[in-house]
Amino acid sequence: MNLELTILGCHSATPRVNSHPTAQYLEINNRHFLIDCGEGTQRQMRKYKVGFSKINHIFISHLHGDHFFGLIGLISTYGILNRERELHIYGPKGIKELTLLQLKLSQSHAKYPIIFHELTSKKSELIFEDKMVSVSTIPLSHRVYTNGFLFKEKEKARKLHIENIQQYPEIETCDYHHIKAGKDITLTNGEVIKNKELTLAPAQPKSYAFCSDTVYKEDIIPIIKNVDLLYHETTFLSDNESLAKKTKHATAKQAAQIALKANVKQLVIGHYSSRYKDIQLFKKEAQEIFSQVILADAGKKISI
Amino acid sequence: MNLELTILGCHSATPRVNSHPTAQYLEINNRHFLIDCGEGTQRQMRKYKVGFSKINHIFISHLHGDHFFGLIGLISTYGILNRERELHIYGPKGIKELTLLQLKLSQSHAKYPIIFHELTSKKSELIFEDKMVSVSTIPLSHRVYTNGFLFKEKEKARKLHIENIQQYPEIETCDYHHIKAGKDITLTNGEVIKNKELTLAPAQPKSYAFCSDTVYKEDIIPIIKNVDLLYHETTFLSDNESLAKKTKHATAKQAAQIALKANVKQLVIGHYSSRYKDIQLFKKEAQEIFSQVILADAGKKISI
Repeated sequence: MNLELTILGCHSATPRVNSHPTAQYLEINNRHFLIDCGEGTQRQMRKYKVGFSKINHIFISHLHGDHFFGLIGLISTYGILNRERELHIYGPKGIKELTLLQLKLSQSHAKYPIIFHELTSKKSELIFEDKMVSVSTIPLSHRVYTNGFLFKEKEKARKLHIENIQQYPEIETCDYHHIKAGKDITLTNGEVIKNKELTLAPAQPKSYAFCSDTVYKEDIIPIIKNVDLLYHETTFLSDNESLAKKTKHATAKQAAQIALKANVKQLVIGHYSSRYKDIQLFKKEAQEIFSQVILADAGKKISI
Repeated sequence: MNLELTILGCHSATPRVNSHPTAQYLEINNRHFLIDCGEGTQRQMRKYKVGFSKINHIFISHLHGDHFFGLIGLISTYGILNRERELHIYGPKGIKELTLLQLKLSQSHAKYPIIFHELTSKKSELIFEDKMVSVSTIPLSHRVYTNGFLFKEKEKARKLHIENIQQYPEIETCDYHHIKAGKDITLTNGEVIKNKELTLAPAQPKSYAFCSDTVYKEDIIPIIKNVDLLYHETTFLSDNESLAKKTKHATAKQAAQIALKANVKQLVIGHYSSRYKDIQLFKKEAQEIFSQVILADAGKKISI
């Protein structure tokens, strides 16, 4: 398993007994990310057995309550749980001032370091990178400054093609690290065996794009092109297209159009308005444009 | 029913799947108050069918997360629900700055007026009063500035004693408002009928004292003397008495001692530490000192 997304909440606006605001937990190449953190997210994490301690990076799309009112509670809980490791928080400018004021008023100075990465750019930028994974912003268009996030595995090294290698008894185990590093092998008779013959192509790097909240915006297509999984908000159905435009949200049809034009493999939809009682209608509308649609639902896991 | 308390959450520190931080809904003489508002309170209000729109006054004891991290979510939800009526918030200094910063960052200016009553006094003070009810602070001793709240019905007018009145055919219905107003009646023969003979004493005014969080503090006894219902936190059992003192909390035994010394009618306990799996132990310990003990539990209603 390279990439697994767990939906913790997928409804818009106000938390209800059985509908939780946006939060997602993403495991990608053994990196553990939290994306958005609506009120009650820590309860949802406990309910769906997401390990608190694994998360070192939290990405907040925008400062509307249904996307971040659970953040200060989670930060406080980490303090109570005696966390020591750094916690990195990526989000719009203001998130640091607010968090520090909350901690000051409660006199609960977190003993662990919190590193804020405040975002202000309107262009896509690389905000996290290590040897396995990178994360870039996807500038969205909503009523407040909002970013989506693109999570990408890095290209892996080619793998040893043991069957082919064994056809050359002269190649020894101690040569393997040269082969893994991409080198060709020269036999004692001078023959050069190309690295491609001795190795297999690695699995295709996986990618996930999280886009919430936004009006229909084709500018994002080049950034999310060909991703394996796209989450795109669908607050409304097409019956409320003008309301979607006015409140800077998208319809299920529009999300599907973006998925189609960006040639993504699968589309997850969510952020449903509470006015719709039958969530299946979102899937039905989206599938008229794009077939590979998954309905977000709290507790649902999507593996690639 | 004069007074009904609904427990929305009664656990300390961090929200868990089945244990919610402090929040209580109090109905007293048709006034509807929310007391503390931990994360997830609005979800608990929906679960236990507490009408959002009835509440015009919210009392926050202190600025630890388990007592107020749900407040901004509720304030935002009122905005989404198009509230127009004033909302009064009583709580420690800082609550206004924090709330206004949260609203500014989310660019969701509440369309209804929010009136902050910031508390700084270390002495009990009257903070709300109308013709039916009064609310005063109960200064507590915790790690941060904390108040409990004393809710009291006002003395009602005496009621007509119809049976006695009818013994005097000369007294007419149009005299009743004089009798209700406390006046004696003079018959045409000059005989004076005392008001006490023509009226019945009203029901005794009811009172509720909410005390959370605090170390054992006898100073509160004169303020809460003889109340019908006392909520007193019991984070710990006596096995952790020194930890209770260190963290400025109380044990079940100490809460019962306060109840006994203040001569209250009933004691509700809560704010249990998650280290205790069997909540009944709190009741058992308290009842060794004071018999009328109720265990707080989410959804429980206590009527007087």
